[in-house]
Amino acid sequence: MASPALRNPSLLIHLHHHHPRRLATAILPQTILSLLSSSLRTPTFRAHSTSAQTRPLPTDNARTGRSGSLSSPPVQPDFSEKIDVNPPKGTRDFPPEDMRLRNWLFNNFKEVSQVYGFEEVDFPVLESEALFIRKGGEEIRDQLYCFEDRGNRRVALRPELTPSLARLVIQKGKSVALPLKWFAVGQCWRYERMTRGRRREHYQWNMDIIGIPDVTAEAELISSIVTFFKRIGITASDVGFKVSSRKVLQEVLRRYSVPDHLFGRVCVIIDKLEKIPIDDVKKELRSAELSEEVVEELLQILSVKSLVKLEEKLGTVGEALADLKQLFSLAEKYGYSEWIQFDASVVRGLAYYTGIVFEGFDREGKLRAICGGGRYDHLLSTFGGDDIPACGFGFGDAVVVELLKEKGLLPEVSPQVENIVCSLDQDLQGAAAAVASVLRQKGQSVDLVLENKPLKWVFKRAARINAQRLILVGNAEWQKGMVGVKILSSGEQYEVKVDELE
Amino acid sequence: MASPALRNPSLLIHLHHHHPRRLATAILPQTILSLLSSSLRTPTFRAHSTSAQTRPLPTDNARTGRSGSLSSPPVQPDFSEKIDVNPPKGTRDFPPEDMRLRNWLFNNFKEVSQVYGFEEVDFPVLESEALFIRKGGEEIRDQLYCFEDRGNRRVALRPELTPSLARLVIQKGKSVALPLKWFAVGQCWRYERMTRGRRREHYQWNMDIIGIPDVTAEAELISSIVTFFKRIGITASDVGFKVSSRKVLQEVLRRYSVPDHLFGRVCVIIDKLEKIPIDDVKKELRSAELSEEVVEELLQILSVKSLVKLEEKLGTVGEALADLKQLFSLAEKYGYSEWIQFDASVVRGLAYYTGIVFEGFDREGKLRAICGGGRYDHLLSTFGGDDIPACGFGFGDAVVVELLKEKGLLPEVSPQVENIVCSLDQDLQGAAAAVASVLRQKGQSVDLVLENKPLKWVFKRAARINAQRLILVGNAEWQKGMVGVKILSSGEQYEVKVDELE
Repeated sequence: MASPALRNPSLLIHLHHHHPRRLATAILPQTILSLLSSSLRTPTFRAHSTSAQTRPLPTDNARTGRSGSLSSPPVQPDFSEKIDVNPPKGTRDFPPEDMRLRNWLFNNFKEVSQVYGFEEVDFPVLESEALFIRKGGEEIRDQLYCFEDRGNRRVALRPELTPSLARLVIQKGKSVALPLKWFAVGQCWRYERMTRGRRREHYQWNMDIIGIPDVTAEAELISSIVTFFKRIGITASDVGFKVSSRKVLQEVLRRYSVPDHLFGRVCVIIDKLEKIPIDDVKKELRSAELSEEVVEELLQILSVKSLVKLEEKLGTVGEALADLKQLFSLAEKYGYSEWIQFDASVVRGLAYYTGIVFEGFDREGKLRAICGGGRYDHLLSTFGGDDIPACGFGFGDAVVVELLKEKGLLPEVSPQVENIVCSLDQDLQGAAAAVASVLRQKGQSVDLVLENKPLKWVFKRAARINAQRLILVGNAEWQKGMVGVKILSSGEQYEVKVDELE
Repeated sequence: MASPALRNPSLLIHLHHHHPRRLATAILPQTILSLLSSSLRTPTFRAHSTSAQTRPLPTDNARTGRSGSLSSPPVQPDFSEKIDVNPPKGTRDFPPEDMRLRNWLFNNFKEVSQVYGFEEVDFPVLESEALFIRKGGEEIRDQLYCFEDRGNRRVALRPELTPSLARLVIQKGKSVALPLKWFAVGQCWRYERMTRGRRREHYQWNMDIIGIPDVTAEAELISSIVTFFKRIGITASDVGFKVSSRKVLQEVLRRYSVPDHLFGRVCVIIDKLEKIPIDDVKKELRSAELSEEVVEELLQILSVKSLVKLEEKLGTVGEALADLKQLFSLAEKYGYSEWIQFDASVVRGLAYYTGIVFEGFDREGKLRAICGGGRYDHLLSTFGGDDIPACGFGFGDAVVVELLKEKGLLPEVSPQVENIVCSLDQDLQGAAAAVASVLRQKGQSVDLVLENKPLKWVFKRAARINAQRLILVGNAEWQKGMVGVKILSSGEQYEVKVDELE
């Protein structure tokens, strides 16, 4: 008897394949169970019978395409310019392994937000540029990822979420009942020269409370971040929050009768202290019409690290001190005192903050700020709306991952699938599909093997996708309405009726 | 004894408030339970005691801000241009109610994909324009949302996900084991004149199988969409799939010796049949160097609606027929035969499809295509990579929602929170925070009331956010380590120790 390969020329492909494999020329009567148990010892055994002769076998090498009886050279491509296979500079693809980590992180963001009773919102990633153009020399404006669209409108990929949120709150107007507690996880963009390995996009988790003038709101926000850190294994010895209030600076400025309209700009300049030389900061402050004396007083107050000292400087009457005291008192009740510390040098780089500001930092001092936020009671009026007291924070997806790596806390998020279903015979592909359907209707996840492959290949794939069990559909068993099952962790194997598959 | 309002002027604010309310001038010894049961009958009773006098009460009207002892006029805004409060033309905000629906839809996309053993991936929403520029007159190219960035690079907001996927597959090269089964849910953009109420962005669910030359892959993809429809309540009498193969047209073109490189372009022209007059289609086909005879033959074959007739036209040898027969046979095994029908007029508008194409449609014929997909075995070589057989589909978030509305199947996705926690006394705000923390540590969701509010307000908020129970922290109970609980569905109420809260 001639071998099938000689009788059917299309099978010859396999003989010349770069992974040479023996064809199953004569399958002896064999149960699925014996196949299952022998498969690892006889790895070249193919998971199909000779009935595959009735139809040309698909080849392993995908590039050769199918070898149908009607010769079918590939359709000419419309064009064939070689494209850059990397994502645009500063951006990321998320192949499955990265996407699993991203989902793990985002699910933690979302679950914490929900535990705090926040509702999810989102906004367009492309906004009108005007939404982000503020005076005050913010870094965020210089790095705006902006364009002119085909209708000659100035648009920008959002650098942050808060302006969109403010826009939506104004739009909703009196139709929403305050307070709003909203969270979002969205991609933000900046156009930065690609130094320091910083990317042009990142995802940011935001939580905002709109309509609460009291520091109870800031205390609640910091509590939620602490809850998040604890969930992912970060402790108070890894991370802390530096907390201050912009009202500290405001009180100094007012004492020296500096006009209020300079406030935002001065804060943005002061925020540069850790990034540019102090003399440059002083120069910028003086060019903002601040006298030498005010500049020195501002710089002095920034070095204060305790509320006792702050009280010595400011006296007992101001809001800055009252707010901060209340916040530290609430932190005690929440149980996160050890996470926070007063530090007057925290100002944050956004012009719109008006009160409490805070920033999460790693205690080893190796990384940039992990997150930051504060109160922005007057942002809405800058957009022409009526002011509503509000506060919120932004928490990026980049620094926290660096931190988790540093601490050895990055989780291994493996792929997971409950079943891998495979037919032993090309004619049984439909039967395997039926078995997969039964399991899927029960909510089970199934990777269905879509080609005839050697059992060795199937076992390798099962291991790679972390399948819990292998279900084999073979001819003899199928005629009895049964399939072979192998539990991959234990090696246990048995036959079972398809309708009894759980 | 003078009323507190007269002793403390700041309380007068409430008397002049636009929601006039009676102040609790003399609180009699009262348990939380009596408060809870009376609250609905005496709605103006405030949820705080007279101890609130020690600190000015926050007002209900958020705009008045806090009334601290140090007068604090608002910081002058940096600018005050009135911005457009609407999202950019053709884009959407997602306030909570819309986000809940979006999450419901996306979770169904994701869960179905996982049940089919697919892994999630993502790509940048901003890609190099070159990735999307194909010859062939596709609508998708004319509507590219493209820009020049600040580095003078041509970039585009992706109109679809498949080119990015192809780019990533090429980039990964031999480091990934085939087949890949990937899914993504991502936002796609087009710049279209804003007629017909179509938007400029939508989200698209994609599932792709890379590395399987056989129709088993297409059968698996259609099965997953059917599973999705069933999950959301759509039946085979609501929706069907029109299925064809581009190889039908290819075989006709080859019979007339039309060069292969015209194939993609011809398909794109034919796809316009339902959008522009037939004479314009004919004109375009003739301008693509097709003879009158070929054009007539093409248009004839497009009217074929059964495989029997197709076999009469094409004979039995071609791949087109074999593929389609195999697909219909597999559909029977999967159990979705009633969902699919052969219809040669389905071509799809993307140039890169090479084999089976399909599209989901509503049987009432009111809506545009709900989803569509097909085989694109040669897309990778158009990007300079080696070809790998592949197929996939795109499923937008717009038409399916219209369909659900039509059918009355749009779910009511309400906000949900397990607890609303409220202190009865401003001094107990920290205690309420502590109670909230206890519950949150147990994984329960808590909306913590962050200001002193009348109980009527608290009950209204509880109803709006669908809270399951109200937890009240009052002075007398708190001193015993207890809180008051009211189950909001049944009205049942009791006191419980904080550490026994479940």
